[in-house]
Amino acid sequence: MRYLIKFSYDGTCFCGFQKQDGLRSVQEELEKAISYINGQKSTKITGSGRTDRGVHALNQTAHFDIDVNITLYKLKCALNSLLPEDIHVNSVEKKDDEFHARYMAKSKTYKYLLNVGEYNPIKRHYIHQYNKSLDIEKMNRAIKDLVGEHDFESFVSQEAELPNYTRTIYDAYIKLNGDIVEFYFTGTGFMKYQVRNMVGTLIKIGSGKLEENIIKEILNDASKRKYVYTAKAEGLYLVEVKY
Amino acid sequence: MRYLIKFSYDGTCFCGFQKQDGLRSVQEELEKAISYINGQKSTKITGSGRTDRGVHALNQTAHFDIDVNITLYKLKCALNSLLPEDIHVNSVEKKDDEFHARYMAKSKTYKYLLNVGEYNPIKRHYIHQYNKSLDIEKMNRAIKDLVGEHDFESFVSQEAELPNYTRTIYDAYIKLNGDIVEFYFTGTGFMKYQVRNMVGTLIKIGSGKLEENIIKEILNDASKRKYVYTAKAEGLYLVEVKY
Repeated sequence: MRYLIKFSYDGTCFCGFQKQDGLRSVQEELEKAISYINGQKSTKITGSGRTDRGVHALNQTAHFDIDVNITLYKLKCALNSLLPEDIHVNSVEKKDDEFHARYMAKSKTYKYLLNVGEYNPIKRHYIHQYNKSLDIEKMNRAIKDLVGEHDFESFVSQEAELPNYTRTIYDAYIKLNGDIVEFYFTGTGFMKYQVRNMVGTLIKIGSGKLEENIIKEILNDASKRKYVYTAKAEGLYLVEVKY
Repeated sequence: MRYLIKFSYDGTCFCGFQKQDGLRSVQEELEKAISYINGQKSTKITGSGRTDRGVHALNQTAHFDIDVNITLYKLKCALNSLLPEDIHVNSVEKKDDEFHARYMAKSKTYKYLLNVGEYNPIKRHYIHQYNKSLDIEKMNRAIKDLVGEHDFESFVSQEAELPNYTRTIYDAYIKLNGDIVEFYFTGTGFMKYQVRNMVGTLIKIGSGKLEENIIKEILNDASKRKYVYTAKAEGLYLVEVKY
């Protein structure tokens, strides 16, 4: 039987979502719990995608197959009783055998939180402590240049080496909530470092170090990738995956 | 020269505000930084009061005396460059020699955060994960019985052994913000475990385990202290100290 789980995690103490030898990953913790429930049979999960070290998730998704007769409610409780305190399963659904958590994802939403006020020690792992002012209106004009179908290669980590960097961003905007700048991005999918690179470049625009129209130039000209700046991981959250 | 500092801290990795042998305290970290600035002379600070292990502060206060010719701005920067990342000095003021951070405090405000929604791993050290529903209206009626001048001995840790347990609560109320219940208390001062014990008892009222009028009974009758329940530390914040 195939199941889809939606889960949240605090990325602070993980090497990221994906399993890595000798490091603590979200995937490995979930697979340990699921394998235990699946009669101790080693069971793999397929996530909707990866998140990097220090990145948080409010509703990451993954699918897996287990052969256990158990209600959805009991499966959720069993998972949460086995998982460490920095991962939590929010919901469990039954899916047919064709369902795929990565290939069938229609859109993903990420948010990035940045503090332009006084350094806040309580939020240091959960909001990027920028602690200087930014021109939010300028950033909100610049972020619109990212919306639409584009080749995002200049905003993607050069490690990625993908066959195709074209993606669509359906919506992108910035909201100021007290001293916290909230960036929101919804799109077909985001590649390694893409959101952090877009945010980092917007921060440089907001601080006056880059011109407002640099986004367009970077998208159209790979030699402009040198202007791309990677924002810190701790402000980033995978908010939602839609199917 | 006497100075007043206002500072915030993440209580998660401290034994509390007060110095304790062999343990990591907020006081010790501040005294190390201040002593360094004060020409490496061992310098003590006097806080407005203590907070327990795991309790956070947004604007705790303390005074100290140093004989260094330094601007307020430079003193703040020097402190923050020496302090660990879980303490931050928000402001520094010069005070006359009669000023006292504890004796002159006119009021203190505490807040307590509790999650009645799904367990949130990202907030597990910062919001009490209660994860069940509560009758907020009933709790908001009951909390009013705490307002005014009362002998709060039944709500104070029996370790405290104070000469006098009479204090005044100026204001106390509960606000629901999405899934987060926010308790606010402003008063002359609060004793060991007092806020956590008031919140814990209100939680029992909200969950139907205690009657709405139990607060009055506990205040009037020390034998009713057995109904008092201590809420977890991680939801508690010292918000402000007024002079």
